[in-house]
Amino acid sequence: MDHQELTTQIQAFLAEDIGQGDITSEAIFPPDQLGHAQFIAKEAFLVCGMEKVALAVFQVRNPEITSNHALPDGHLVRSDDVLLTLTGPVLDLLAAERVALNLAQRLCGVATNTARFVEKVKDLSVRIVDTRKTTPGLRMLEKYAVRVGGGFNHRFNLADAVLIKDNHIAACGSISGAVAKIRSNVPHTMKIEVEAETLQQVEECLASKVDIIMLDNMDLDSMREAVKLVNGKALVEASGGITLENVRQVAETGVDVISIGALTHSAVACDISMQITAHH
Amino acid sequence: MDHQELTTQIQAFLAEDIGQGDITSEAIFPPDQLGHAQFIAKEAFLVCGMEKVALAVFQVRNPEITSNHALPDGHLVRSDDVLLTLTGPVLDLLAAERVALNLAQRLCGVATNTARFVEKVKDLSVRIVDTRKTTPGLRMLEKYAVRVGGGFNHRFNLADAVLIKDNHIAACGSISGAVAKIRSNVPHTMKIEVEAETLQQVEECLASKVDIIMLDNMDLDSMREAVKLVNGKALVEASGGITLENVRQVAETGVDVISIGALTHSAVACDISMQITAHH
Amino acid sequence: MDHQELTTQIQAFLAEDIGQGDITSEAIFPPDQLGHAQFIAKEAFLVCGMEKVALAVFQVRNPEITSNHALPDGHLVRSDDVLLTLTGPVLDLLAAERVALNLAQRLCGVATNTARFVEKVKDLSVRIVDTRKTTPGLRMLEKYAVRVGGGFNHRFNLADAVLIKDNHIAACGSISGAVAKIRSNVPHTMKIEVEAETLQQVEECLASKVDIIMLDNMDLDSMREAVKLVNGKALVEASGGITLENVRQVAETGVDVISIGALTHSAVACDISMQITAHH
Amino acid sequence: MDHQELTTQIQAFLAEDIGQGDITSEAIFPPDQLGHAQFIAKEAFLVCGMEKVALAVFQVRNPEITSNHALPDGHLVRSDDVLLTLTGPVLDLLAAERVALNLAQRLCGVATNTARFVEKVKDLSVRIVDTRKTTPGLRMLEKYAVRVGGGFNHRFNLADAVLIKDNHIAACGSISGAVAKIRSNVPHTMKIEVEAETLQQVEECLASKVDIIMLDNMDLDSMREAVKLVNGKALVEASGGITLENVRQVAETGVDVISIGALTHSAVACDISMQITAHH
Amino acid sequence: MDHQELTTQIQAFLAEDIGQGDITSEAIFPPDQLGHAQFIAKEAFLVCGMEKVALAVFQVRNPEITSNHALPDGHLVRSDDVLLTLTGPVLDLLAAERVALNLAQRLCGVATNTARFVEKVKDLSVRIVDTRKTTPGLRMLEKYAVRVGGGFNHRFNLADAVLIKDNHIAACGSISGAVAKIRSNVPHTMKIEVEAETLQQVEECLASKVDIIMLDNMDLDSMREAVKLVNGKALVEASGGITLENVRQVAETGVDVISIGALTHSAVACDISMQITAHH
Amino acid sequence: MDHQELTTQIQAFLAEDIGQGDITSEAIFPPDQLGHAQFIAKEAFLVCGMEKVALAVFQVRNPEITSNHALPDGHLVRSDDVLLTLTGPVLDLLAAERVALNLAQRLCGVATNTARFVEKVKDLSVRIVDTRKTTPGLRMLEKYAVRVGGGFNHRFNLADAVLIKDNHIAACGSISGAVAKIRSNVPHTMKIEVEAETLQQVEECLASKVDIIMLDNMDLDSMREAVKLVNGKALVEASGGITLENVRQVAETGVDVISIGALTHSAVACDISMQITAHH
Repeated sequence: MDHQELTTQIQAFLAEDIGQGDITSEAIFPPDQLGHAQFIAKEAFLVCGMEKVALAVFQVRNPEITSNHALPDGHLVRSDDVLLTLTGPVLDLLAAERVALNLAQRLCGVATNTARFVEKVKDLSVRIVDTRKTTPGLRMLEKYAVRVGGGFNHRFNLADAVLIKDNHIAACGSISGAVAKIRSNVPHTMKIEVEAETLQQVEECLASKVDIIMLDNMDLDSMREAVKLVNGKALVEASGGITLENVRQVAETGVDVISIGALTHSAVACDISMQITAHH
Repeated sequence: MDHQELTTQIQAFLAEDIGQGDITSEAIFPPDQLGHAQFIAKEAFLVCGMEKVALAVFQVRNPEITSNHALPDGHLVRSDDVLLTLTGPVLDLLAAERVALNLAQRLCGVATNTARFVEKVKDLSVRIVDTRKTTPGLRMLEKYAVRVGGGFNHRFNLADAVLIKDNHIAACGSISGAVAKIRSNVPHTMKIEVEAETLQQVEECLASKVDIIMLDNMDLDSMREAVKLVNGKALVEASGGITLENVRQVAETGVDVISIGALTHSAVACDISMQITAHH
Repeated sequence: MDHQELTTQIQAFLAEDIGQGDITSEAIFPPDQLGHAQFIAKEAFLVCGMEKVALAVFQVRNPEITSNHALPDGHLVRSDDVLLTLTGPVLDLLAAERVALNLAQRLCGVATNTARFVEKVKDLSVRIVDTRKTTPGLRMLEKYAVRVGGGFNHRFNLADAVLIKDNHIAACGSISGAVAKIRSNVPHTMKIEVEAETLQQVEECLASKVDIIMLDNMDLDSMREAVKLVNGKALVEASGGITLENVRQVAETGVDVISIGALTHSAVACDISMQITAHH
Repeated sequence: MDHQELTTQIQAFLAEDIGQGDITSEAIFPPDQLGHAQFIAKEAFLVCGMEKVALAVFQVRNPEITSNHALPDGHLVRSDDVLLTLTGPVLDLLAAERVALNLAQRLCGVATNTARFVEKVKDLSVRIVDTRKTTPGLRMLEKYAVRVGGGFNHRFNLADAVLIKDNHIAACGSISGAVAKIRSNVPHTMKIEVEAETLQQVEECLASKVDIIMLDNMDLDSMREAVKLVNGKALVEASGGITLENVRQVAETGVDVISIGALTHSAVACDISMQITAHH
Repeated sequence: MDHQELTTQIQAFLAEDIGQGDITSEAIFPPDQLGHAQFIAKEAFLVCGMEKVALAVFQVRNPEITSNHALPDGHLVRSDDVLLTLTGPVLDLLAAERVALNLAQRLCGVATNTARFVEKVKDLSVRIVDTRKTTPGLRMLEKYAVRVGGGFNHRFNLADAVLIKDNHIAACGSISGAVAKIRSNVPHTMKIEVEAETLQQVEECLASKVDIIMLDNMDLDSMREAVKLVNGKALVEASGGITLENVRQVAETGVDVISIGALTHSAVACDISMQITAHH
Repeated sequence: MDHQELTTQIQAFLAEDIGQGDITSEAIFPPDQLGHAQFIAKEAFLVCGMEKVALAVFQVRNPEITSNHALPDGHLVRSDDVLLTLTGPVLDLLAAERVALNLAQRLCGVATNTARFVEKVKDLSVRIVDTRKTTPGLRMLEKYAVRVGGGFNHRFNLADAVLIKDNHIAACGSISGAVAKIRSNVPHTMKIEVEAETLQQVEECLASKVDIIMLDNMDLDSMREAVKLVNGKALVEASGGITLENVRQVAETGVDVISIGALTHSAVACDISMQITAHH
């Protein structure tokens, strides 16, 4: 996660929430009034982004805001645990509060959600990975939360990895045709991944020596069969319809990777509140 | 919802997802290859943003993309219903697909979630309203989805309405002090809303002739008492801990407005898929 | 006035005035040459923005520029008074000089102009407020200058308050129709203001329980009549054709608010010069 | 005046005034409701920017807005003259109205103000030119209005022309020293202008063969003397304290150019209103 | 190459070259004066970017500019060949001329330079690839030109592929340590490339099952030995000090890929001129 | 060269090269690991931009990066000379390395290339100047490098100087017509330059009292004749087809200025490497 890019994003988020100024607080607090604030967990969850994101929001708002306590990523908290402490001008603590909370709550939600999937398969050598089904504008942050939750990332965007889907195959007439076309175009640093819906397609993928075969919405038996067919000659990724209920079964088919849109698109915010005290 | 602002946001979302180009599709499809696509519901939900948002994403990508079917906002769909049809260059349909789906799925999610709350109180003259607990960067869109779901909006940001909270009151010594300070600063076009945690504070609010009294995490009995005390002399807004389970009870206390962060922060994406066919 | 937004605006203003560099000064002064500068009033006026705006311009240019004297907002100065002192690299003092002066001169002009109107009605409980007739790009700053001059602000933009005008009424067939349509759309935090051109319309406004009635270009007798009709049941705002000559008469009709475009659109710059000495 | 740069500026101005949407009009007018609008002069002035700026504002908002009448730059109008007609969606006519009016009123003000100075010296071969005392963010537009008013422009910013002032001279010890330093640094395409406060300095400028000598706040006799000294060997520019009252006398000293900050910093808005009718 | 991203870049390039307007041409040509222009080769080279880049520059400037002839990418031209024809407003043809030429000349230069390297090894199954040694701000365009010249791309930026260099190895104590750390962090879609300076390191790379081994500045004998060692178990990339003189020898060692910074950092512009005729 | 503008450009260059983060280094180095780096010359060249540009890149990335050695602009170095030393977090040294090197290599290339031309004519009073044939996006930086190499700049863009070319002349019917039209439009601070292709046109230029006459692709004899004709009444600029081989001959014709596109468009990067050591 790049700090320059993060700063740019935070500036836009603050502008959205603050507009031309906090009309209430500016009428009440002088600019030099200092205060102290705490982020408090209101339920149990996996911590994500206290220092790297929430504190960064406050420091983008005012670099003079400091913290002497920030729970590390991956920490499990219970209700009432103190997640982050802050000291600085009250006006800036209040101005940045909502953006910092909204981000922290969402990132903890994604990390916690991911951790639930990871927990189900923790004794197996399978990766739980995300997809491009992230909130528009928050991809870098949500993919970071997936990693904090013990998951791994799939490609970041359309430019940094190849994924040949049914439309590409149809346009080329065959998997081998599509792979050949791609191979003669893309950097040698890129793996080639192909979506297969049938075992027949899995065999075509193997014949084309692709790097990753994505089993698209296959049933468990077909997945097991596919894993056998592939036999280590490519990475096998299961995709489509994975839930907390079936992720263990899917993992036990022997696939290497399970990609799950729900890690991000169905995460809900964790409950965090900020308590603030003005100094006198 | 402003179309110029929406266009600016969509451009950023597309840039995030496309990067320097769709390396897979550009190697396979010629720029002038046309295709046809459909958004299909994969479950039941309330439609939001097909024409105003999803289609706009495609048209920001390429203004030549057209649609001859877009379900209107507020329509209830079932699995397999066609939500939106699109015709245009395959490369642009594929390039904009993920952003359009991610936005549409989230907005339908917010609208559907809101509609569940609204349904619970539909025979009462109470408003279900959102909060500033929206996804950073998506506030305008999520507040639009709340309206589509039958809810109403609270303030957009810190600059366009006054909300006096406990810290402001503490800093001024009293509600009357805080209100006086605010009243002598803000435009006459603005209402003044104050958070009250006790009936004593409700009475102080009334004495200060505030426009809206927010009952912050009060129990049901106190809310009923507060409504009686206020007796139409201010709007009464209930806030804090509202769920689908208790929203009806809260509404029956007689409050005018119920604000619910969960409308946006706990909405999950609705399931929509895009099917695309290249023309030949 | 938000400091993050102000910084963004100042960066654009400096870029406009400096382009790819001050070709004259860069050829003459070394980067580490320090100097001292003073803003001097060349006429009498009401000070606005020395610390919050002019100094901010210099510090956006170079955070190492410091000041040990800045007259506070609202101070009345005479010719030759020192408004602001600055110490820092000569190259940056010269590079930021023109933007800082242009802004300071304009803001002092708006504040001074506003104060003239406010002075005329200072013993009456009426507000002098601005309009959206501000210089494009300078709204936040000019509205701040109006407040410094003793005035108040009207709405900031089209999104943060409702103002129903003749076209809206015509489109809905009646004031009550327009108000009903608006009321069912906008946040409960927003007041509803309606433009009335006749006493008949004032009565319709009252019947619709609007929050603010704007008397649009009414004569003094009608205004007096309107105030009587309204009798405290709404705020009454006079608008249109207000000058320094007639503002007192308008105020004496008993209206609560007088909105005046001339506060901003007809303010002229106050005369300020900067004197700079390079250290040796 | 560059149309790409103008479009960028207009987008920012519209965003400032519209925010996340015109909450009043969007609740009342459907997106496809067409209307007709007119800009009407409410006093006499010199027209500036109807087609190039005001119409451009509407077309940046919505390219489908058309005009079949726009008074040309430099036209003299009287009260009630129609300046510009517009046809297009009512929502976009209303959304762009205020920015278009604010710009048009200011530009007509600058052009009209400039024309008053130009008129005073119209039989003399002297140029009335502007300065960098323009409204921050509006330099390109205000300098265009000066040209429409019959004036000419001075340099656009610190990067595109050389102006050696007292500080530069002091730092180099002499005019000849400063000119030599500059000459060995700047492009051969640039003229060198030097501020002279005394006749002695004028002679030093001549000795250094500068292109333009700015007489800074000289009295009329000194100016006449300076013009004689220079005798066509450089352009002579008068600057400082020029008013409508003394501009004729200054011009009669024989200077080539008179630069006047008041052209822009003291222009006041001309009165223009927009009348709009929705089609039915 | 993404057209939205390209448009954004072109807008910045045009702003740099045009500033606040083409002061010469705007004084001479009316906005509606049409003209015709041609890009003419002034020497022999490989064509790159006539339609996708040069024409795009003109159409970003004014979408009404059309072309009825654009030589395709990869075409070999001789002096005096017509590369591109254009029709549209003279003012916009002149305003966009220099940016379009500067880009076209550079891209043809990169493509032609690349083609020279590719030609040397055309009968061998080796790839000539670029590096990150591109002109800041032009990476997407220069990498496109490399592909037009018959080369391939290496990674686009630090985020889209892994390249373990000496510092990373030193920090981890060993290649295996570095690879393990990386493997447990990066997406399964990414290949792992490691820089090896000795045959010993090549063996360590093989032991760690890396995907690509970059032979960093190895001599020809070592490269041959490395290829033998690797024996197809990884891609072998030669890097460092490759010139037109030695590229053939390097290729004959049997490496799979040769990466050459000079493709982009040492390309020189091809000579192209634009001839324009105004219509009458 | 303006530091604010430079910072803005560097931020964009870093974003291009880093994307959402350095995936390799972030997995290996902790954020607080410090290191030391050196820029080393790998060949002989003229130094340009070590402190003002390369160091600035690192400090934009992280203001805590410091340097205790930076060779000054214009210094001649040999292979293995240390150009710049740096101390700071390893992650930021690595993240900014490529952009800093790419810029430094290109700027040293332009400066060194320029110095070769300047050297050929160093005993003559002629200026070697650049053109607008710069790399899009790098104009300010490349023009700075030209100055470091001993050359001078021509105009920065289309807005800051007048250059009347054949098309302008044709449109006006004559040089005198074009000059008159321009003179009545442009600021008095601007020189007027005209392209002349024949001696006849040189005479027309003189008759119109232009400031600079550009001899466009004239042969040496004609240039000599032109210089004689002009005889000091204008600056004479030679342009077109100037090479290291013929620049001396052109200079000896007596022209005042020689403009050479190759200074920038045909410069190649100088070889610089960065060596980095992590502290332990």
